[in-house]
Amino acid sequence: MTDQPPAYRAHPFDDDKLREECGVFGVLGVADAANFVALGLHALQHRGQEAGGIVTYDAERGFNSARRFGYVRDTFTSADVMQTLPGSLGIGHVRYSTSGSKGPAQIRDVQPFFGEFSMGGAAIAHNGNITNAQALRRELIERGSIFQSSSDTECIIHLMARSLQKGIPERMEDALRRVEGAFSIVAMTRTKLIGVRDPLGVRPLVLGRVGDGWVLSSETCALDIIGAELVREIDPGEMVVITEEHGVESLRPFRPVRPRFCIFEHVYFSRPDSIIGGRSVYETRRQIGVELAREAPVEADLVCPVPDSGTPAAIGFSQESGIPYAMGIVRNQYMGRTFIEPTEQIRNMGVRLKLNVNRALIRGKRVILVDDSVVRGTTSRKIKEMILDAGAAEVHFRIASPPTSWPCFYGVDTPQREKLLAASMSEEEMRSHLAVDSLRFISLDGLYRAVGEPQGRDAGTPQYCDACFSGEYPVEPSDMIEQGFTLKAAE
Amino acid sequence: MTDQPPAYRAHPFDDDKLREECGVFGVLGVADAANFVALGLHALQHRGQEAGGIVTYDAERGFNSARRFGYVRDTFTSADVMQTLPGSLGIGHVRYSTSGSKGPAQIRDVQPFFGEFSMGGAAIAHNGNITNAQALRRELIERGSIFQSSSDTECIIHLMARSLQKGIPERMEDALRRVEGAFSIVAMTRTKLIGVRDPLGVRPLVLGRVGDGWVLSSETCALDIIGAELVREIDPGEMVVITEEHGVESLRPFRPVRPRFCIFEHVYFSRPDSIIGGRSVYETRRQIGVELAREAPVEADLVCPVPDSGTPAAIGFSQESGIPYAMGIVRNQYMGRTFIEPTEQIRNMGVRLKLNVNRALIRGKRVILVDDSVVRGTTSRKIKEMILDAGAAEVHFRIASPPTSWPCFYGVDTPQREKLLAASMSEEEMRSHLAVDSLRFISLDGLYRAVGEPQGRDAGTPQYCDACFSGEYPVEPSDMIEQGFTLKAAE
Amino acid sequence: MTDQPPAYRAHPFDDDKLREECGVFGVLGVADAANFVALGLHALQHRGQEAGGIVTYDAERGFNSARRFGYVRDTFTSADVMQTLPGSLGIGHVRYSTSGSKGPAQIRDVQPFFGEFSMGGAAIAHNGNITNAQALRRELIERGSIFQSSSDTECIIHLMARSLQKGIPERMEDALRRVEGAFSIVAMTRTKLIGVRDPLGVRPLVLGRVGDGWVLSSETCALDIIGAELVREIDPGEMVVITEEHGVESLRPFRPVRPRFCIFEHVYFSRPDSIIGGRSVYETRRQIGVELAREAPVEADLVCPVPDSGTPAAIGFSQESGIPYAMGIVRNQYMGRTFIEPTEQIRNMGVRLKLNVNRALIRGKRVILVDDSVVRGTTSRKIKEMILDAGAAEVHFRIASPPTSWPCFYGVDTPQREKLLAASMSEEEMRSHLAVDSLRFISLDGLYRAVGEPQGRDAGTPQYCDACFSGEYPVEPSDMIEQGFTLKAAE
Amino acid sequence: MTDQPPAYRAHPFDDDKLREECGVFGVLGVADAANFVALGLHALQHRGQEAGGIVTYDAERGFNSARRFGYVRDTFTSADVMQTLPGSLGIGHVRYSTSGSKGPAQIRDVQPFFGEFSMGGAAIAHNGNITNAQALRRELIERGSIFQSSSDTECIIHLMARSLQKGIPERMEDALRRVEGAFSIVAMTRTKLIGVRDPLGVRPLVLGRVGDGWVLSSETCALDIIGAELVREIDPGEMVVITEEHGVESLRPFRPVRPRFCIFEHVYFSRPDSIIGGRSVYETRRQIGVELAREAPVEADLVCPVPDSGTPAAIGFSQESGIPYAMGIVRNQYMGRTFIEPTEQIRNMGVRLKLNVNRALIRGKRVILVDDSVVRGTTSRKIKEMILDAGAAEVHFRIASPPTSWPCFYGVDTPQREKLLAASMSEEEMRSHLAVDSLRFISLDGLYRAVGEPQGRDAGTPQYCDACFSGEYPVEPSDMIEQGFTLKAAE
Repeated sequence: MTDQPPAYRAHPFDDDKLREECGVFGVLGVADAANFVALGLHALQHRGQEAGGIVTYDAERGFNSARRFGYVRDTFTSADVMQTLPGSLGIGHVRYSTSGSKGPAQIRDVQPFFGEFSMGGAAIAHNGNITNAQALRRELIERGSIFQSSSDTECIIHLMARSLQKGIPERMEDALRRVEGAFSIVAMTRTKLIGVRDPLGVRPLVLGRVGDGWVLSSETCALDIIGAELVREIDPGEMVVITEEHGVESLRPFRPVRPRFCIFEHVYFSRPDSIIGGRSVYETRRQIGVELAREAPVEADLVCPVPDSGTPAAIGFSQESGIPYAMGIVRNQYMGRTFIEPTEQIRNMGVRLKLNVNRALIRGKRVILVDDSVVRGTTSRKIKEMILDAGAAEVHFRIASPPTSWPCFYGVDTPQREKLLAASMSEEEMRSHLAVDSLRFISLDGLYRAVGEPQGRDAGTPQYCDACFSGEYPVEPSDMIEQGFTLKAAE
Repeated sequence: MTDQPPAYRAHPFDDDKLREECGVFGVLGVADAANFVALGLHALQHRGQEAGGIVTYDAERGFNSARRFGYVRDTFTSADVMQTLPGSLGIGHVRYSTSGSKGPAQIRDVQPFFGEFSMGGAAIAHNGNITNAQALRRELIERGSIFQSSSDTECIIHLMARSLQKGIPERMEDALRRVEGAFSIVAMTRTKLIGVRDPLGVRPLVLGRVGDGWVLSSETCALDIIGAELVREIDPGEMVVITEEHGVESLRPFRPVRPRFCIFEHVYFSRPDSIIGGRSVYETRRQIGVELAREAPVEADLVCPVPDSGTPAAIGFSQESGIPYAMGIVRNQYMGRTFIEPTEQIRNMGVRLKLNVNRALIRGKRVILVDDSVVRGTTSRKIKEMILDAGAAEVHFRIASPPTSWPCFYGVDTPQREKLLAASMSEEEMRSHLAVDSLRFISLDGLYRAVGEPQGRDAGTPQYCDACFSGEYPVEPSDMIEQGFTLKAAE
Repeated sequence: MTDQPPAYRAHPFDDDKLREECGVFGVLGVADAANFVALGLHALQHRGQEAGGIVTYDAERGFNSARRFGYVRDTFTSADVMQTLPGSLGIGHVRYSTSGSKGPAQIRDVQPFFGEFSMGGAAIAHNGNITNAQALRRELIERGSIFQSSSDTECIIHLMARSLQKGIPERMEDALRRVEGAFSIVAMTRTKLIGVRDPLGVRPLVLGRVGDGWVLSSETCALDIIGAELVREIDPGEMVVITEEHGVESLRPFRPVRPRFCIFEHVYFSRPDSIIGGRSVYETRRQIGVELAREAPVEADLVCPVPDSGTPAAIGFSQESGIPYAMGIVRNQYMGRTFIEPTEQIRNMGVRLKLNVNRALIRGKRVILVDDSVVRGTTSRKIKEMILDAGAAEVHFRIASPPTSWPCFYGVDTPQREKLLAASMSEEEMRSHLAVDSLRFISLDGLYRAVGEPQGRDAGTPQYCDACFSGEYPVEPSDMIEQGFTLKAAE
Repeated sequence: MTDQPPAYRAHPFDDDKLREECGVFGVLGVADAANFVALGLHALQHRGQEAGGIVTYDAERGFNSARRFGYVRDTFTSADVMQTLPGSLGIGHVRYSTSGSKGPAQIRDVQPFFGEFSMGGAAIAHNGNITNAQALRRELIERGSIFQSSSDTECIIHLMARSLQKGIPERMEDALRRVEGAFSIVAMTRTKLIGVRDPLGVRPLVLGRVGDGWVLSSETCALDIIGAELVREIDPGEMVVITEEHGVESLRPFRPVRPRFCIFEHVYFSRPDSIIGGRSVYETRRQIGVELAREAPVEADLVCPVPDSGTPAAIGFSQESGIPYAMGIVRNQYMGRTFIEPTEQIRNMGVRLKLNVNRALIRGKRVILVDDSVVRGTTSRKIKEMILDAGAAEVHFRIASPPTSWPCFYGVDTPQREKLLAASMSEEEMRSHLAVDSLRFISLDGLYRAVGEPQGRDAGTPQYCDACFSGEYPVEPSDMIEQGFTLKAAE
């Protein structure tokens, strides 16, 4: 059923990037937990801009929830909203969009989701994607469950409701053992803050400490904003159950497998000031630029980043190559969700609303443009035209990731395979299509070296999930196969 | 769980009336059904002002739904909303508030409710109240159902989801046989419009025809607004299943009992231009005034209605007594939901914002005030003071219903028994409490005569549900008894 | 210049009535004056529903103002707004629309208007219409004044700014001596509350007392709502200057003429519970019904008012004729400004959204319909059709005012002359046009008798302004003549 | 008078910068001019974020205007608004705040301003500040002008209204000869687009061509967004009157003086991709970094910009010094106007909501922080603390402008002199106050060299207005002196 949505439309730009679909955050043992959650979600806003939600628990008022479309800074900062979210325990979620939803965004698809069980209530927030959600949903409806959302995450609540276990953490274990795919989950009961990562650990989740309280977050940048200390990353396949009395209890509900963290978190999704595996994401990206300059050098006058995501790799490329770094393209900082009902005229202006070329700087120069990735190639093409219009002598693209030729089914919004430029073209074909002087992607081994694997990729069992580049899916995307998706092996 | 609600608050006035909680409407076989439903709900707005919802079905877009707080005239008239509701089959609901809800109003409590079953979806809208809802809810949660609202009506959807029957009408029969209390239901599948009344027929439901289409409505006034013809009332205990191919199929899923229609629909709930049992509600109310003038005559100069609900009875009283009818109290027509955040100063002004005495008319006169009912007595007291302030010589209250001394549990919002003035005071005590020259209520037999029972009330099995006056509940209010309510028999 | 207006549109209904364009209110010497002004404006809402404004003065914060589209109950009741309006002196205004404005409503046309002069500021609110505003405006622009609104009232501010007098009341006298037409004005400086009526006293203005404070209001009903006592009416041609120190000072700045109060205030504009000339407006209207029954009797079964404005005359008609009074037409109380973006389908439903016939009551009856006036005749025609559709045997219209055949230029919104049914048809032609069994208007002499002139109308110098009936304009409408309007004498 | 404002509050951050107060834009001779104006204003949004306005002229509908609080991207992009602004001629304005306004922002202070004169209407938009506005206002009020805003710009309209000249351009000349201070004005009549710069040319204004149409804009970046070509800068003291028939007519209404362009436009106000005097603003800022590295070298491990305004100078500093450039501080890109009603807790978090330190990068390093300016010093202090908290070994501040020790009175929002850190402290005192290892500002001569004056500053008559650094005001700030401001000479 399609509910008539609020007056909100996602913006039509930035559609030429892969997009992380969610960020999760939770805190236990601090006064006014909702304020901490709002700040944490604000720091995680890059992981989902469409909507956000917060649930808290307070002995007097029970569970409280607020879910809103729009940015956290606009929706979870007024006293009006925050006063409705009392308590010292809370979790939150930001999302870009949920799997399977067609048509306009629906408030009932906004997490955290809540379920009332006979032993009490629980709320859960999920980053990732359940690859057998459709099959589970069919089965649950046949048994008499009523679904309220189009989200894959709701399956978990219904599986928990039907579990024969007594306690909520036990029911969650039961439910997650039926679930396939990627999940980093933050959940809560009246007294417990719970965190879980799937056995492969595809999506990130970290544990922090703030005063006497505990924090769970998708990334460390959200610990910084509230002044929390990073304790450690939650392990792949680990479940932590945190209470004020007993602190952190660690469980291992799943059969152990070799972890496969998403390598694209390094390339684009995570914030540059977050720390993954003890290392700054910014530094990793700069190192990608260094590798790229070694693999694909070219003579030129300037190295310019495609703002903002190409910046660290461009700095690394400049430092390794000795070619001066310059801001040849300037981003309009007032571009946001914006120009939501553009006229045809405005729509045709494309990227010009967001980016402007520094004409006086570019004129007559040989320019290296460093970007993080090429998805459809539409933005790359427009940027190339802007640079040439401004009088550049040569344009060389250097891309800080390998060709993106397969969709992601683990919580990232990717176009269908046909829409991916690299799915049907070789590097040279892409260069010719974009009509640039040269185009080079970093190699898969080069990327592995930059993220800290000096031997490169282990072709047997790769150290990361790199399905978007390699087509090797660590978990079979069974719903998608049912819908007709063809695996690489079967091609 | 309490969801942070939209910026809406029910107004603090009119709190001294019993309030019908819902109106239902449905239509099949007309183009743009949603427009008809919106008009029908607008005509039924007096049955529920807090919120409204519409569901339609369209082959291309499936089920569509819109739910809003506020008046139909404000929420279901913009092209924006109505365009999201295509199709030739639709149902709708207006509500005052749902049973059991504490705290602020929640959009997820707004009907119609929708459930996706393995054989397809169904939406239902319910007027009445399920008296064993809490027990059913507990049972369903234990079996693994996830409730999304605090409404008693949601039990029906979950009972349907777990039924072993194949078809949706059959599952609804199954579900309703487990349900106790009062229900007039309008429901729909992809092809069927369904209407049901509980075996006692406590709440009204009528069948109409518009062009080649069919209509179900709480009252006939909603047929008039769309130019539909009244076909007949749905019988107590009847279920009608209407399709475009086969028209109206009538079923009798319940064991037959003697009907007990709510007598207060005649006194206050229904609109004066509706027809019940072949007779104008206005005419019945005028007849109550005639009976009252016979039972409780008094010498006076003017008969004034308490606007607007006392008007028909005041006209009848004037005609029977020969005392001139006059508009001694004038209602401010711009009072609506209004003054939603009044200052303390305004709050203390009480009824003056809504009503004003016609001072030049009242001065020195002996005035008979005719009102429909006395609930808490707070409004009566203020009106009496206004009349005396304006210089009336005498004030005589005549009430067009018997003393309201018991709460209703069948879909009417009544205060707790302690708050009902008549629960603890005799007629003379109330007169003295209100400090008026005389106060008389119509007798229960007088009321039965006025509604068309020349022999008065059948004390054995009364012809109507009159529990609010008599304390004789035709269905045991089991949830309330569990919460400590004491039946009259047990006092 | 047309400013892009807020999302507001006047509703398309009730367009078949003359409409008072403004109500004014002011108070001096009470704490939180703005609350009193808001309540007063709420009581005067029937005089203008489009927009309202309040100005207050407070020693610390100076002059403060808030102007809003919509009903007072929605716009001037939140703490947010009211806290911005401190002080013990304030004035307010409600309006329907201003003279001369074409296109969408503009917030800058909403009164009170404010001017900063060298000796301090002043705010004014105006009920009426300046008939030489265009000529004044042209003259002022040529001298270098910058107009901000399209309102005739702004001329007064500019005339005051250019006066050679020292004090603000003196400048206002200067300005008003240049102004022709109808004006009842409430104005304020930092310390003074000022009231003025034009020499003919076309529009009403009354003085009241609340505690130690003073009140000015268009009607007495706004004194009642705040618990103020009526002191007296402001005389035609009188200016009162009220201060906390010296109370009320009365001035006579204009040459005296015989007053010509607007007789239509009795017929329709004023609220029935207001008092004019010591007499209840309701009682006057009832008396019009009595006169009408004497002038134009007819045999029938029921006397039904066209709600709500025909009610008092219908009561009088019933009492004089002995034919029973009945509510044959019921008004939907949830109709307000409403259905603002109706679909074509809804638009065609015409009056049915607002009114419904009590079918069970009307069937087979001879019905007398009493209405206050006939303007375009469009509503009368639809009501007649509804009554006949419901099965009435005969329909007789009785109208509580003479035929409206001339536009008003003194602060009332009337259609152009061509649109007035009575401008081109005789009574019999109108009857035939409406296709009713009989149609009768009260005579002009009958109306004068009912408002308390036993000898009827003084044909030499009538006691009232009755230009809308007689075409005799007490002040020449010079702007309109310039635009091509032809006076009766010149026809 | 204070009008109750809309629900908008300027955000409390970024309060430690000087702020340009306005941007202006106009276009003639293109279809749907309003779309071009909206895009131009979007590109100029950095010059004013509080509000914006657009006026257009269309033969059929006359002048049309829309004024809104908030970003252009949110307010001037919906079809709703843009459809109300037809025509091929339009001007627009974005503003931060107007001179003299205390209390909440008022829509009537939002430009363009409009005046109806006897020969037709005109609209004007102004960047700059009139230094004798108070004296002019007093004089005009005494003569009978009514001011509607608190803006200095309104004086120009009133002076024009009282001019004895016939044509609007001539009246504007008349008015501007009475005005002192800085002004870059874009104005329009029904057929003319007009641009003027004050004799000193303090604020920028450029002329461009788009198709057959003409454009005026504060900066060239707004030409780029609509695909217009830069024709030339408007000269100091020049007035251009542009019509479709005759193109650009150039007038010189003022006595010529040596120009004094605002040097701070180079340092901070203008966008890095704009071109001033044939040179990229980015390149000038990079050059400032180069000069700074020469003037104030220091041994360190990293050069980090304070984002975003310190970036170009940091790149230059790194290139000149050979010390690696790094993103040690990361800006939250979702910070905008944001967190408008922060709780106390959030308010205390200060800059952390906007900026985060890249902890893994900074730890143990000697860090050079490059910022564009130091105003109050509050932000510098917080940034230093964040850097030290993250474990930096040393912190060295390098500032790309001389010490800001005097307020600007020519259209820039500066704190009162007492609040400027450099007004009362020497460089060493500031270093000690900020508790950093070293702090160096670029010299005034170094800044002049970087902007292209190889000989440095001409002490006799400086080539730029640098009053904020030098205290030498090229136009006497007479209103401020009247209010007690003491000139440097008089200290």
